[in-house]
Formats: sequence, C-alpha cells, structure tokens
Amino acid sequence: MNWLESVTTIEQMEADTAKLKAIAGAIRAETWEDRNRNQTPHCKFGEEGLCCKNCSMGPCRITPKASRGICGADAHAIAGRNYLRTVAAGTAAHSDHAREILHVLLQSSREGNYPVRDEQKLINLAREWEIETEGRDIYDIAHEVAETGLAEFGKTHGTQRFLKRANPERQRVWHDQGIEPRAIDREIAASMHMTNMGNTADAEALLRQGLRTSLSNGWGGSMLGTEITDILFGTPMVRTTEGNLGVLEHDMVNIVVHGHDPAFSEMVVTAAEVTELVDYAKTKGAKGINIVGLCCTANEVAMRHGVRMAGNFLQQENAVLTGAVEMMCVDVQCIFPALAPLSECFHTKFVTSSPIARIPGSIYVEFKPKTAFEQAKDLVRMAIDNYENRDRAKIFIPATKQSAVVGYPCEQIIKHLDNITNSQVDETGSYRPVIDAIKAGVLRGAVAIVGCNNPRVRPDYSHFEIMKELLQNDILIVATGCAAQVATKAGLLTKEAKLLCGAGLRRVCQLADIPPILHMGACVDISRMMLLATGIARDWGVDTTQIPVVGCAPEWMSEKAVSIANYVISTGIDVYLGIEPQVKGSSQMMELITQGTRKITGAGYVINKDPHQLVEAIREGIEAKRAALGI
Amino acid sequence: MNWLESVTTIEQMEADTAKLKAIAGAIRAETWEDRNRNQTPHCKFGEEGLCCKNCSMGPCRITPKASRGICGADAHAIAGRNYLRTVAAGTAAHSDHAREILHVLLQSSREGNYPVRDEQKLINLAREWEIETEGRDIYDIAHEVAETGLAEFGKTHGTQRFLKRANPERQRVWHDQGIEPRAIDREIAASMHMTNMGNTADAEALLRQGLRTSLSNGWGGSMLGTEITDILFGTPMVRTTEGNLGVLEHDMVNIVVHGHDPAFSEMVVTAAEVTELVDYAKTKGAKGINIVGLCCTANEVAMRHGVRMAGNFLQQENAVLTGAVEMMCVDVQCIFPALAPLSECFHTKFVTSSPIARIPGSIYVEFKPKTAFEQAKDLVRMAIDNYENRDRAKIFIPATKQSAVVGYPCEQIIKHLDNITNSQVDETGSYRPVIDAIKAGVLRGAVAIVGCNNPRVRPDYSHFEIMKELLQNDILIVATGCAAQVATKAGLLTKEAKLLCGAGLRRVCQLADIPPILHMGACVDISRMMLLATGIARDWGVDTTQIPVVGCAPEWMSEKAVSIANYVISTGIDVYLGIEPQVKGSSQMMELITQGTRKITGAGYVINKDPHQLVEAIREGIEAKRAALGI
Repeated sequence: MNWLESVTTIEQMEADTAKLKAIAGAIRAETWEDRNRNQTPHCKFGEEGLCCKNCSMGPCRITPKASRGICGADAHAIAGRNYLRTVAAGTAAHSDHAREILHVLLQSSREGNYPVRDEQKLINLAREWEIETEGRDIYDIAHEVAETGLAEFGKTHGTQRFLKRANPERQRVWHDQGIEPRAIDREIAASMHMTNMGNTADAEALLRQGLRTSLSNGWGGSMLGTEITDILFGTPMVRTTEGNLGVLEHDMVNIVVHGHDPAFSEMVVTAAEVTELVDYAKTKGAKGINIVGLCCTANEVAMRHGVRMAGNFLQQENAVLTGAVEMMCVDVQCIFPALAPLSECFHTKFVTSSPIARIPGSIYVEFKPKTAFEQAKDLVRMAIDNYENRDRAKIFIPATKQSAVVGYPCEQIIKHLDNITNSQVDETGSYRPVIDAIKAGVLRGAVAIVGCNNPRVRPDYSHFEIMKELLQNDILIVATGCAAQVATKAGLLTKEAKLLCGAGLRRVCQLADIPPILHMGACVDISRMMLLATGIARDWGVDTTQIPVVGCAPEWMSEKAVSIANYVISTGIDVYLGIEPQVKGSSQMMELITQGTRKITGAGYVINKDPHQLVEAIREGIEAKRAALGI
Repeated sequence: MNWLESVTTIEQMEADTAKLKAIAGAIRAETWEDRNRNQTPHCKFGEEGLCCKNCSMGPCRITPKASRGICGADAHAIAGRNYLRTVAAGTAAHSDHAREILHVLLQSSREGNYPVRDEQKLINLAREWEIETEGRDIYDIAHEVAETGLAEFGKTHGTQRFLKRANPERQRVWHDQGIEPRAIDREIAASMHMTNMGNTADAEALLRQGLRTSLSNGWGGSMLGTEITDILFGTPMVRTTEGNLGVLEHDMVNIVVHGHDPAFSEMVVTAAEVTELVDYAKTKGAKGINIVGLCCTANEVAMRHGVRMAGNFLQQENAVLTGAVEMMCVDVQCIFPALAPLSECFHTKFVTSSPIARIPGSIYVEFKPKTAFEQAKDLVRMAIDNYENRDRAKIFIPATKQSAVVGYPCEQIIKHLDNITNSQVDETGSYRPVIDAIKAGVLRGAVAIVGCNNPRVRPDYSHFEIMKELLQNDILIVATGCAAQVATKAGLLTKEAKLLCGAGLRRVCQLADIPPILHMGACVDISRMMLLATGIARDWGVDTTQIPVVGCAPEWMSEKAVSIANYVISTGIDVYLGIEPQVKGSSQMMELITQGTRKITGAGYVINKDPHQLVEAIREGIEAKRAALGI
C-alpha cells in the first residue's frame, strides 16, 4: 500500500467516534457532543469578555446602552481583567504541577519509590544553580535542588532563576519592560489582586502583568516541571509507540492513565510490569495488563516508556465508551467530570488521585510519594479484578491505530543534529545544521504546534490541515500536548511522513533520520520549545524574535494555553491562534494582543479560525522574518 | 436639642446625595446610580453562580435543559469553583496589601520616611517569632521581622505562624479538618489550579479549600497587615474625629485619601502638616490644607491621626461632586474607575499611586518608600496649585457631619476594661469584665458589623437598622470598614449613643466610658476581631464557637468580604449576611455554606436580605449560644 493512503484521515477518526457515539446513544449516555449542543449558542457577553463577575454588585455586562459596570469599569477593564485572571489560572495549573514534582524529588531516594533516573541532568541543574556537587551523595544534591526549585514559587526577593537561560537580548527586553517575573505564586497573587474590584482598570497594565505572570510559568513553573520530571523519570529518548483507540486490547486488562502530572502514572506503569500482577491478570483470563495514556499524561509516559497513547482531550469519553477499559486513573487537569457518570454506564473504575482534582462519583485514592508504588499495585489489582465485569456485548474497540516515533526533547534533537555534523570540521552540540538548512532555504522555518481540542472548531481538523500544509511548504514542526496526539493518530509522527513534505524538508528528514513532526512532550514541555528557540537564536547570533520560528495553537481550550501563549509572545515568538481569546468586546485588548505586545516583546497574536488562512498567515510571517534576516 | 434628634438618618444622608446627584445631572456626569440602573436586572446565571468562564469551550451556563457544562461540570462544580476563585481573589487583595506594608517595614529606618512608631509591638512580635531582640538595634529587628513576615507568603514548608495565636481547641479543629493554611500565595495558587478546567468538581472539596485559603488571609495576610501597620504607624488609640461630607472645607485645600494601604496616605497626611506647605496654601488664598479620608484608608488615618472621614464606598463619587476636592489620592482596592471621568467634570486631580491599581485617566505617581515623603509633598503642592481652579458655581458641600470616637483595637479595649477592674482583686489585661457582663445578661453578646455598601440594598440602611436594633437589645457592636463609617456618619460612634441602647448595654458603656459601637479599623483589621474573639474565648475557657459573638456583613460587595466571611466561619464564628453569596443555583453549595461548614468549623452563614429579620436571626443565634453555655 502507498504510505500516503495509510494516513488516518479526520473522516476515519470521526467514523470511529460516530460508532462510539451510537453506543452512547443506545445506553442513553451523554457525551460532550450532547452537552456542547445544549450549551450552544454561548453567552455572547462571556465570549467577548464583557461580563464581569468580580464583585457582588454585579455581574455587570457591557452593552451599547451600558458602557460601564457599576464601579465604572469599561469594556477594556473588564476584558483585560478576565484575560489576566485566565493567565493567572493557567500559570497556577502548570506551576502547581511542577511544585508537586518538586515535592516528589524532595522525597526521592535510592531505594524508595522515586530514584533519580537522570543523574547527569540533576548535576547540570545543580551546577547551574551553584549548588555544591563535588563529593556529595546524589540524593543530597537532589534534595537541595528540590528545595531550591520550591523556593522559586515563594521567594521574597529576586526574579526567576531560569530567566538567565534566555539569550541576553531577551533578558534585556524583559528587564527594560519591567516584566521579569518574581516568585511564581506572587505573580499569581498580584494578578488576582490587580483584577479585584477597585484595582487596575487599565488594559495595558493588565496585559503587562499577564506577560509577567506567564513568564513565571514558561521560564519558571513549566520549565521546572519539565526539568525535574526529566531528572526523576529520565530525559525522554526517541521511542516508537502507537496511538489511537486501537491501542486498547480485547484480551488484556486495559488501564488508562489520564491527566498531566506523571508522578502517579509512572507508578501505575511500573506496577503493571510486576510479574506477580501480570500472572494475576492471567488467572483472571486476560493475556496481560495493557497500560495506555490519554492527554498529556500519555505524552509523558509515551516519551519515557513507549506506553501507547489512546487519544487526546476530546477523546477521553471515547475510551470509556469502548467498554473495554477496566480502570481510568487520573491525576490533574483536563479531566472531564463527566467521566464519573459515564463510567457508571460501564464497568470502568474511575480513580482520582490528587487533592487538586476531586471529582464526585470517582474512587479517590490520594496518592502519596511514600506509598505510591503500593497504591499503584493495589489499583492495578483492582483493575484486574474488574476484568471479569466487562459486558462483552457493549465492547467496541475501533481498530484504528498508527505507529508513532516520539521523544524529541532538545537533547535528542541536538543528538540527531550531531549525527549529521562533520565533527572534524564543525562544532557538535549545536543547532547550526538546522540554521544552515533554514539559511539555505531548504527549510523555510519551524512551527511549534501545540494546544488542546475545542468543540468551537471541528476536532483535530485544524491541527491536521495545518500540519499537512506546513510540511508541504518545507516547514518543520515541533509538537506537544493534544496537538502532538493528532499527529500520532494520523500517522504523521513517523519517518514515512517525509512523503508529505516538500522536497527540502524531506531531504532534511532523510539526512537527520527524523520525522518531519518532532514530538516534544506534554503541554508543560512547551518550555522545551522555548529552550529550543533560544538555542537556535544563540547559535544564530540573533534574538529569538528574529528567527523564522513561530507558535501555533489551532484548537486551544484551557486557561493554561493562554498562559503559554503569553510566555511564547514574551519570548519574542509570534503565536497563531485558531480560537479567539475572549476579549473581542474590547478594541483596546484586541489591539494589545495582536499589535501592542509587539512593541513590548517583539511578538503578538495572529488569529484566524480558518486553518488554511492561518497557514497562509504563518507562511507570510515566516517569510517576513526570513526577509528581515536577509535570507 | 435632644441627642436622639441629632442622629443623622438615612433619609438625611439620601437628601444630601440627591442634591449632589442633581449637580451631576446638570453637568451630565454619570454616577453609580445611573450605571446600576443600566446594569439591572443582572444576569441570573451569574447571580446564581451558574456561569462558567474557566475555559474557552464556554462560557457554559446551567439550565434545566443543560444540567452540565461541556466538560461535564454541574451546577455544584461551577458554583463551587466560582466561589473558591472569589475567596482566592479576596485573599490575594488583603494579603498583597500586607506584603506591601512588609516591604515598607523592610525599608524602615530611624531617619528615613518610615520610622518604627510602635517599638514595643515590634519587640513583642519578634519575641513571638523567636527573633533575637536583646542588644539589637530596633531597625535590625524590624528588618528581620519584615523578612520573616514576607516568608509567610511563600515559604515552602509549614503553616501560618499566627495560627498559634488561636485557642488550642480552634487549632485542633483546623488541624483535624486539614484546613491549616500553608504559605498564603500557595493557597491562592492551589485555589486557582483546583478551579481550572478539568480539576476539582466536588463542591465540598472546593469549599474546604476556600476555608483554608481564607485562613491564610485572616490568620495570615490580614493579621500581618494589621500588625505591621501598627508597628510602622503606631497602634491606634482612642481619638475623636468627624465624619461625612461636611468635613470638606469651603476655604481650605481639600485632599481626599482613598483606598486601603495607608503607607501612601500616611505620607500625604504628614506632608500636609509641613509649615512651608500650609503657608503656601495660604498664599493661594486658602486657610490651610484639609486632608480627609474615604473608605478604609479613612479608617486607617482616622485611627492614627484623627483625620476626618468623608464617607464610605458608595460615597466616593459624592466627594468629587461637591466640586471642592482639589485632589483625590488613591492607593489600592475599591477605587471606582469612574472617578477618572467624573474628576474631569471638575477641577479635581485624580492621582493613582500603586502598580496594583492603574486607572486610565488618572495622574499616575508610582509611590516608592524611599521617595515617599518628597512625592507626597509634590502632590500636596499640586493640590494647592489646583485650589484656584475651583469652579465656585459648582461647589456644594453638604453641611452634614457627625462627631465620632474611633480607635479601639484590642489593646484599647483591654485598657478600658482595666479601668473598671478592681486591680486589688482581679487580674488586669483580661476580657473578664466583658465576660462577666455577658454572663450576667447585662450584655447579651457582641456583633462584629463589617463590610461594604452594595446597590443591591438601600445603601447604609441595613447597617443602620441593624446597629440600632442590636444596641436596643443590649448587644455590643464592634465595627470596621464601610460599616464603621455608616456609624460614623449617623453619629453612633459617640458616647451619647448609649441613649440608643438597652439598659444593660447603656450601663456597660457608662462604666467603661466607651461608645456602644467600637470602631476597630479598616477591613483588613477584621483580624483584630478574630483576636478579640479569641481573647474572650480564652479568658472564658471555651472555644470561640461557643461565645455569644457573631459577625454580620449586611451590605458586602467585595471578593475580600467573601474571604473574610470564610475565615470568620473558620474561626468558629457565625456570619450573618444581608447579600447572598452567588451560589444559589447549587443546592449543594447553599447547603455547604449554611450548614456544611458547621460540621467542619462549628459555624456557618445565615442569609437574609431584610435587616430586621437578620437582627431577629442574630438575636436567636446569640441566645442559643447563651443557652448552650447555661447562661
């Protein structure tokens, strides 16, 4: 078969979903499609950012007749405040995830549940932070690194340590613009204070605090999350795995791990490999235990263990609808509360594990680092015991799945570039080969495609269309999160996908032996992309805002995405959005996010719901950056 | 004249407002009454807590037809999340205010703008925190106390230091219920994370995090704010002052200080006393410089300097409408952005001073501790220069004002109680005389009346009615914030107000030489009330939840009020509300805030919009507590 014909199309994905929806319909189970229909049309005030709920005099809503809320806040103040609270919430989510991982590192030990897997990365970070490493036990270093990392959340003086990782031009921009972030939690608190009734009503001041807060995420919390996760669980390496619902097995105990923070799922994965439990599964008539991932937890365990990925955000209910999931274990973020009532329609055990994500109707097992492995084994045993409760009449596992090559953190990208560097002539450990390819025009540039799904657009479609068109136009893609999983499901995370590429990108892929879409991890790992862009800019000798590299979030949904978009903008990288930020009711805010930030950070948003038009805009943006560089 | 006839009635206050509104009407200036009319009726979804804006799939709204948002969040999850975000924002506001004051303390010096005024309180706090005091310079101690206080916002381990000030029973409740607050900013960040899409959907878990977060305010941020403000600017003492718009002067340069954080207003007050500036004002034809306060800044400077109070929250535009205000200097919180366009209708200079409260159309002078006094003098000079720009045709200063006795922190209450203690027989420094009066039934109990104004009810009316009826029923009142200012404006903060009291309370007032309503300060000073209740409980030998003392917020509006109400509940003290928290659409949340918290902390809300019915409920509550104590 021609490989191109093997690509899973959106239509094929939708056909699978339709079959699962029919099952849901037959048992009167509700899914997001039903709820989305009931919730449409949405409140226009909310969509446009014109509804203020920040005090109990209101809610107030801006209309032509009522141009100000009771306190006098106008459209710009209200939309700006809502926007800043969104950034604050997104920053809190990502950063709090990092805090949890740091607390796990603080409890790491040689013999315990959590050993350090990447000692070199730990030592590098300790050195970066001027923590003594010579002659010390690795766990002493680990614990000091953990304490130092935790201090980034609440230190009373100074700015984020990782800002120094940025190129000097960027650091100067942040300093001169007054947006260097202080302690992460402080920026969140300051944002909540500024948006409280009777405080800031100036849209630009709100936007600037958004940039500052987001930097405490991208160059603070998220970067800490990624760094410490690598130290604890190993820096990801290139691995081959599979993706889409077809990874669920008819004759195995299926356990889905879902969420974002891998500390829990790592233990579940490890527990499922325990011989005793595998044998126990066999006594129950199963051929074994099949762990699969959903959402960003999937990305985390795929990159580190090759665990297969069942799907992305809007597919979470589909996994349950297969009737073949014995257990869904979730940690934090992007978990539909709807999974509880839906699981009740099947035999699926729905297990929550974090005090941050308590969901009624779930089995709550509060996960603690000290007892993590025992807890995970208990859960796996519970899942095995549940295998016999499957209702075989209700089972439908779509056959669809694709092979995928995952795991390209910066370290792996550099490694692949080193392979094509003539080490007799050129320096290794550099992004120079990519830069040379861009300068030569073989590659036009690179796009980071990230973000969620959102029922406001046809799910996965925008991601898919944008990816295909960019590849055709010799634009390399790096991807994370639910966007990366669209590529997985489609089959685009394979080396064969070079066949979709223009001649230039195809040659690069062949030479470097990489797929044209590089899987960089979970949404928290967009910090890796910031370091990638910084590395390229450094090796190029320019600022990040000059290189022909942009970000794109075609189907974003979470508050985290708004925080991310803001730190990408702050890093000088334009962001192309397929979903409008909810500030349209304020001309000032619309101007600020699309143009105003360009004067502050050198980058801004471009917004277009149509994926093809968005690609056109991206290409124009990349070509303009090339022209400015004289290439 | 019979004193009772001298009480300023709500009708009289409204008559003044009506005259000022007529001026506004004549010049087509908009005020909150106009905007309130335009904003009514409010969105019912928002009012009932049933609108979720926490991701861009929405907004989602719960209706009978659509019982869940797109993610599956139901009414309880949505209302609970909104409620928790409200607590988080209120906590952020109060606590960030405290942080600013701590940064001022960190820069305090013997010769600088900010000396330490209450050295004994500083030393007491240092000892409480086990900071060395012997043989150290007071400023070394001050700076170490400031750093230790700042660490409460971000420390990576442990809970709030001030929790230990609570009685042991209360501390045990907090510990057993898992609501001991960690670092203040961390609780805010955790709240934002929990309420982010795909995290907690369980109403009780959200409520519990609200209690925990609020405790980081009441027994953290707010208590720090009060404590450090006393150290820097002096612990308030009983003073006589005046209140209502009549404190503005026809023939003086009027400067209004408005907001909450007194660091700025203290400097303005000091600058206005500089002979050179007073003389300068005289050269411009004014008789002098008249500083008056608005909102909680008024409470702060009234208690420490006897500065007169122009009014409370919904009166802020009225001050400008008099046409006699040369300058309004604001710091943070509860500032109407509407003051900017309104000031433009007059000669009034509207000056903002904090990066936390940037308002378009204002003159922004970013206030810095090191240059504070110079900045304040420049502003006073600007105000003086503005005196000649008054449009005499537009001036109307209502004559109404009342005398008021203010400044009853715990220290002053104890001092007054000591005066009536027979020190030969009984211990001094105790609340025993109050307890004895309550036990004897001379006093039935005490009510803390606090909070804002809110156009949802007739402004000031509920406060006034409740105060009068409680006094008649021998219930002592302590008051802060805008509630205290209603008492000020009415004339109830006077010793003559004993004439409104029942026979028992009247005797107590006479004996202790106090007004029947004790002014305890700004809204941040509700922490003083927690220490008062704790002291009474301690000297009684019972838990705070047992004493016949309750809180009442008849006209609350700010998110801060929700945080306050939660920490009061957490302290075991019932809260009687005249405005509904916006969770009515969730039966679970309604049950949790009125009943559920009683199982957790021993206290809960009682909600009634009718002030007379609310008084009935308060009396029943107090009598029930008395009965339970066997008195």
